Amino acid sequence: MDSLVKPLQDLVDKFRSLDGVGQKSAMRMAFSILDMPDADAYAFAQAILDAKTKIGLCSVCQNISSEEICPICASSTRDHSVVCVVEDYQAVIALEKVKEFSGVYHVLHGTISPMKGIGPDQLKIKELLNRINNDDIKEVIVATNPTVAGEATAMYISRILKPLGLKVTRIANGLPVGADLEYADAVTLYRAIMGRHDI
Amino acid sequence: MDSLVKPLQDLVDKFRSLDGVGQKSAMRMAFSILDMPDADAYAFAQAILDAKTKIGLCSVCQNISSEEICPICASSTRDHSVVCVVEDYQAVIALEKVKEFSGVYHVLHGTISPMKGIGPDQLKIKELLNRINNDDIKEVIVATNPTVAGEATAMYISRILKPLGLKVTRIANGLPVGADLEYADAVTLYRAIMGRHDI
Repeated sequence: MDSLVKPLQDLVDKFRSLDGVGQKSAMRMAFSILDMPDADAYAFAQAILDAKTKIGLCSVCQNISSEEICPICASSTRDHSVVCVVEDYQAVIALEKVKEFSGVYHVLHGTISPMKGIGPDQLKIKELLNRINNDDIKEVIVATNPTVAGEATAMYISRILKPLGLKVTRIANGLPVGADLEYADAVTLYRAIMGRHDI
Repeated sequence: MDSLVKPLQDLVDKFRSLDGVGQKSAMRMAFSILDMPDADAYAFAQAILDAKTKIGLCSVCQNISSEEICPICASSTRDHSVVCVVEDYQAVIALEKVKEFSGVYHVLHGTISPMKGIGPDQLKIKELLNRINNDDIKEVIVATNPTVAGEATAMYISRILKPLGLKVTRIANGLPVGADLEYADAVTLYRAIMGRHDI
């Protein structure tokens, strides 16, 4: 046997195509599928199809949602006048875990990146402007990642929103809690000093 | 949003059910599925179904196969008089990678384990005896894992095959190549000494 039987090799290849999965993990997972009862494997395949067919975007915040309007946008207990702009739905999940932010979100689905040919038109910025024009929004917190592309996107959003008389804020840069100054990079340290506050 | 949208959570749960996959990996993989084109996701689901429906057992060696008789058993270049008995199809894949063994295999699909209620009848030992009765087999190499269950299974097979006048051998125990005596366990060291040979 030079290689795996074809259907098994195909399945290994599929697992390998997933983010961060190597050859050994892919084989282990494919073996798991082979070893599980038929019904479980069918349910697995169905879950993949369901994830693709039943999940769309919330018409308000553009976050992934299985309904027309996501639970956050539909909630009456959230503050709809504060919109936190993030790059992707993973960021929403991370922020929701903190359980401190009571506003709503807007998911851009990417960052401005001329290198990758992604301009503002490919992002959900038009939808953000629509919300600002139609809803009573007081503050926009730009929470794109503190990377080159994230900062560029934040600058762009700030530049188009400020003239509309909105409060536009950016999440703070600084040392992560539990970090050691010795190992912090210079830019982070500089921003931590610049962003100092009274205690 | 207290948790993920239901179809996404379902998919994360499915990935978590795979061998050796934790919460973070499962989420990353589910996100990969969400981010891939629809066609790729459908192909993924189909690969799972294909693996379950198109893969059966070779009627000779009981290894997984997409044909009635697997390529190894059907090969005219392999030595069909030497049968290597292994616990599972993963062992066949590992041994085939060595490219040194030119005999054929027999896959038991487990080991004798009274604790788990697995006796000889639940393994493919009956099929092994059938092969020995019908084919011209000279040597059986018992290559179950060197674990308690693997050793017990090897003993059992040896006990039923020896009276049939077959040569029954067991793979060697000893130090793995590249190992350090300092870190070897006592049983392995003992077997390495007992199994010493002239140089």
